[in-house]
Amino acid sequence: MLRIASTPLARKLGAFVALSEAELSVLDKLHQRRRSIKAGRDLVHQGQPDRAAYILASGWVCSYKILPNGSRQIVDFQIPGDFLGLRSILLHISDHSIEPITNVEVSEVLSTDLLDAFSENPRLATAILWAASRDEAMVVEHLVNIGRRSAIERVAHFLLELSARLALVGMGSKTGFSWPLTQYHLADALGLSSVHVNRVLRQLREDGLVHVREGFVKFMNYDGLVELAEFDATYLEHKGPMLK
Amino acid sequence: MLRIASTPLARKLGAFVALSEAELSVLDKLHQRRRSIKAGRDLVHQGQPDRAAYILASGWVCSYKILPNGSRQIVDFQIPGDFLGLRSILLHISDHSIEPITNVEVSEVLSTDLLDAFSENPRLATAILWAASRDEAMVVEHLVNIGRRSAIERVAHFLLELSARLALVGMGSKTGFSWPLTQYHLADALGLSSVHVNRVLRQLREDGLVHVREGFVKFMNYDGLVELAEFDATYLEHKGPMLK
Repeated sequence: MLRIASTPLARKLGAFVALSEAELSVLDKLHQRRRSIKAGRDLVHQGQPDRAAYILASGWVCSYKILPNGSRQIVDFQIPGDFLGLRSILLHISDHSIEPITNVEVSEVLSTDLLDAFSENPRLATAILWAASRDEAMVVEHLVNIGRRSAIERVAHFLLELSARLALVGMGSKTGFSWPLTQYHLADALGLSSVHVNRVLRQLREDGLVHVREGFVKFMNYDGLVELAEFDATYLEHKGPMLK
Repeated sequence: MLRIASTPLARKLGAFVALSEAELSVLDKLHQRRRSIKAGRDLVHQGQPDRAAYILASGWVCSYKILPNGSRQIVDFQIPGDFLGLRSILLHISDHSIEPITNVEVSEVLSTDLLDAFSENPRLATAILWAASRDEAMVVEHLVNIGRRSAIERVAHFLLELSARLALVGMGSKTGFSWPLTQYHLADALGLSSVHVNRVLRQLREDGLVHVREGFVKFMNYDGLVELAEFDATYLEHKGPMLK
């Protein structure tokens, strides 16, 4: 008898592993140490030795790197159900900074918690490894985005990816989604200037593909956008739980 | 009593987790299904549904994505001890292609092998998650490379990263390393033309920093190269086994 997944993380992992009552309890235990963080205050600083990771329960954050020359590259945005700083827990030190874009709720996860959870339940370890793999697949796509795609393809690809991720935790669909991002975030994530982002967004709207405004993204022609971006969601998808 | 790690993977994971005799046995078991592949023949095709991953035992491979428009982005190179297609096993489908650059020896790992290994030994799951995290950290660095670094910084950063990775499996040092890569590989990995790579390599040699030639990379001024690339190896390092 499966209990209803009560957190975005359980919902996300549940798409990969059919979670038992015992496994859901282990996941619930990972959510014990709740913290609320205000928007704009770094949760993790690059270079910080930190043995804690976080699970994002509500709100949006971005992970970024500042280069010694001062420029900033946003690596990814995290949405509810995502791990923050899972790499840091394993690498001993944070290789990036994490900034809440909205007020957020996080659950602190110590490396010992994670190890205990794995001992109690190796299937859960596999599910978390899957989530980490999906995160890596997204960074790979962002690499291809910046390395090989035009500005309009990049923006389109980014919006479609975000939409698919949000759908998995019940926060988006093919009609659109709410979001807190600005064109400055898009610029720093996609290696474009904010003026360029602005121009691309106008073109996407005029072409009847997608309307991006403050607080909301509304797809006008989802399939047309998929075609423009040559978006292939296989790196995000899974055809039902792989582990029964 | 610790046995000497007999494979590059055991050596690499051993830097993170102090491996017991039982854990080394589990790792050995993952190496049972050996295959030899000739250089130039794809081991994995993008889009291939494939439930096997591989551990690279000897030789060099590259992972790349081909875009629908035909351009190619090399995501990373793999060296002995690295997993190939670990993401594919978890994502049901390969999001990239894998091509041997030299003749290689690989061990096939089925998803069931991995799950069995995790059940027998959750510490090993943590070690593999660490290896996956380090791989992700490298892709993040490559993203920053292409997004924010100049051509000469990119090439320098790439050579230093490769050197640190090779050192971990006993195949390189601060004086240099053997390699099978050409300027075409560098171009496709770093988002540069091969003519541009060639010019950058000449400049690095003339500046007395590093001499890159067929088959070998020789550091002439390692610290100078670190300074040029603003290379910070924290994303690759670990200060001894985290799990005793």
